[in-house]
Amino acid sequence: MTFVKKPVTGMRDILPEEMEVRNHLMSVIREVYVSYGFSQMETPVVEHIENLTSKQGGDNEKLIFRILKRGEKLLEAGREAEGGDLEGLADSGLRYDLTLPLARYYANNQARLQKPFKALQMGPVFRADRPQKGRFRQFVQCDIDILGDPTNLAEKELIFATTEALTRLGMDKYGFKVYINDRRILFGMVRYAGFPVEDTEKILIVLDKADKIGAEGVDSELSSMGYEAEAIKKLRELLFSYSGTAEAARRMGQDIDDEEIRQAAENVADIMDTVTSARHRSIDICFDPTLVRGMGYYTGTIFEVKVESFGSSICGGGRYDRMIGKFTGQDVPAVGFSIGFERIVTILSEEGAGLSAHKKKLAFLIEKDMPKDRLSEVFELCRRERESGHIVFMAWMAKNKKFQKEGLMAEGYEEIKEFYK
Amino acid sequence: MTFVKKPVTGMRDILPEEMEVRNHLMSVIREVYVSYGFSQMETPVVEHIENLTSKQGGDNEKLIFRILKRGEKLLEAGREAEGGDLEGLADSGLRYDLTLPLARYYANNQARLQKPFKALQMGPVFRADRPQKGRFRQFVQCDIDILGDPTNLAEKELIFATTEALTRLGMDKYGFKVYINDRRILFGMVRYAGFPVEDTEKILIVLDKADKIGAEGVDSELSSMGYEAEAIKKLRELLFSYSGTAEAARRMGQDIDDEEIRQAAENVADIMDTVTSARHRSIDICFDPTLVRGMGYYTGTIFEVKVESFGSSICGGGRYDRMIGKFTGQDVPAVGFSIGFERIVTILSEEGAGLSAHKKKLAFLIEKDMPKDRLSEVFELCRRERESGHIVFMAWMAKNKKFQKEGLMAEGYEEIKEFYK
Repeated sequence: MTFVKKPVTGMRDILPEEMEVRNHLMSVIREVYVSYGFSQMETPVVEHIENLTSKQGGDNEKLIFRILKRGEKLLEAGREAEGGDLEGLADSGLRYDLTLPLARYYANNQARLQKPFKALQMGPVFRADRPQKGRFRQFVQCDIDILGDPTNLAEKELIFATTEALTRLGMDKYGFKVYINDRRILFGMVRYAGFPVEDTEKILIVLDKADKIGAEGVDSELSSMGYEAEAIKKLRELLFSYSGTAEAARRMGQDIDDEEIRQAAENVADIMDTVTSARHRSIDICFDPTLVRGMGYYTGTIFEVKVESFGSSICGGGRYDRMIGKFTGQDVPAVGFSIGFERIVTILSEEGAGLSAHKKKLAFLIEKDMPKDRLSEVFELCRRERESGHIVFMAWMAKNKKFQKEGLMAEGYEEIKEFYK
Repeated sequence: MTFVKKPVTGMRDILPEEMEVRNHLMSVIREVYVSYGFSQMETPVVEHIENLTSKQGGDNEKLIFRILKRGEKLLEAGREAEGGDLEGLADSGLRYDLTLPLARYYANNQARLQKPFKALQMGPVFRADRPQKGRFRQFVQCDIDILGDPTNLAEKELIFATTEALTRLGMDKYGFKVYINDRRILFGMVRYAGFPVEDTEKILIVLDKADKIGAEGVDSELSSMGYEAEAIKKLRELLFSYSGTAEAARRMGQDIDDEEIRQAAENVADIMDTVTSARHRSIDICFDPTLVRGMGYYTGTIFEVKVESFGSSICGGGRYDRMIGKFTGQDVPAVGFSIGFERIVTILSEEGAGLSAHKKKLAFLIEKDMPKDRLSEVFELCRRERESGHIVFMAWMAKNKKFQKEGLMAEGYEEIKEFYK
């Protein structure tokens, strides 16, 4: 029998020090979002395979951990697998995000939820990604979503709430910035530049790489796909001439003679106006027509939060007005914002997070073979200290007492009491 | 494309009201255990299939959710599956408890952990049990474990900490009781009564059913297995003559001429002495020689907490001194206590839990099409209320305002403000 000590590939054990940081961050995030009237809820980590593979998840659908059927159904699927049908072996899988399960949840529990429903979720998601530094196959997401509000009041509130959470987490000193766009602007630009409408998705996949390959890279990739130079040039002009302020977005809406683009530009500009009007703190928000976001399900506004000095984004989200309808037959407007929790844990852990334990930590060391009566007294002393709000760690005195005490002090035990028999 | 609205079989969506109860209970449990110096840590929910099927988990190993291999490895396993080897299709599975992953964790991170290591875990576990009322396939366990202490100081601390947590959760008014035994008493009794030592496990499986089938049921099942009437009679006498106090345990140790039993009885009695000596609150603890506990891995003390009026136990645990050694080659003494979190949620939810929200909840209803300047003012008012520590839910005024307000009041929004353009 082989026992394996390491966690499974791409996943990790969380040590107590990091766990303290994580708990602290989670409670700050929860506190901010609850103060905005978001209600925490939860779905199982296991989801129907039919839902997970329903083309809502974009590339994430390639990264699903599939769960084997059990009992008679597995045997049956096993016989079918002999024909090469390995797909049929699984009846469920681990969720790759919190949005798809939320849509299922809303469809399932609609009658019992407030309208609009403001949901808060914090929990693990799973992606069988290629293992790489800082990226794990199980990681926590913190999402807020507003379901049932078709207006951009929802977007405004999500941005206020999430930027407040980031500020309370201490991320403001890194100078984070919100980037905003609207999928309808992207759809409209592709059409307006003269690309075939049915190729829109393919073209957006190329645009999504602009971060990495630059504008030239996008051009040459589109060119190698056989598109006309004129369309490519026009798209590039559209993409790079209007980024920045709400005014730039509005100017774009005026310059381009396309009703869908005009409306979407006004939507973005209106959100930016409200967000920047906040008097108590300045929120840095920027219109970015090149912002695509990978996920398949977005239909309108999309946004991201980035910090210049870190490569990747720390938050992302958008509007997905057509997902819940896949479950219920009737569309429900929906928009969400997700905090990249692990990214923030990494950033704050690296700089020591300044997590001052607010409780006094005492260690009680007891000489071995202490008689029972005396031991009961020590237990009673511990109890009283705990009652006064302190943390008390109790253990036998080690042979190497000096080493033991050093270890405890390193863990923040400021007072160490010794008890002899 | 079919979308499925219900959660997967045997799992459940958690609604906001229950989530509030769960969060509250978790934070109470965490606070109590942290005050005893337990450190929270976490393992992935996915575990190596080799570890999960290593005969440590008893019957739970039959209930594993297995995860399919991916990519090339799956294709390879698929070819082997044609020979009927479905086992090889999975490389991992969902953890069925928190103890086995903790043993792996300790083996993997030993050098960086305090000694003894006092671990606190709260997280979901998974068992593909037959679906039945009140039992789910994903459920939360809250475990504390002490690793590295061979003495029963560890058991004493676990019992103090867990009964304090239960009391703080409000379970004391149901009159819970701790039941304690030692696996070595069971092993010794089976041997002493004259059963073949190699059958011990089989016999314990029958004893474990005493709760359901009664003493007579145990007798007749053992008899049908072909054991001698004399051994059966003797075992029954041993099992039912000594339950109750520490004195009864000691009397048993004296009556039975068996060194292993005598030592184990003294261990149990000594724990009981200390636990009952606590002056600040009386802990009801009872020696129960018929207590078996299903799991395969226990080696010494075992315990359970029961409330007379509920059928099943609400906590359980015990000593498992030989599990970590399977990972490291060197045994590390270990003992743990697990709170049946879902059971307690059910009990406290049924009676309304008395979860008074400590924050004031306000709802701001805004007339549709409010101009942007005015909207910014409302956002600013919201912010100020939140800054004063209140929860503010903001939404458009519904057409049926009366209905909307009733819904909000039902959710605890005590003050509803309306804003007109």
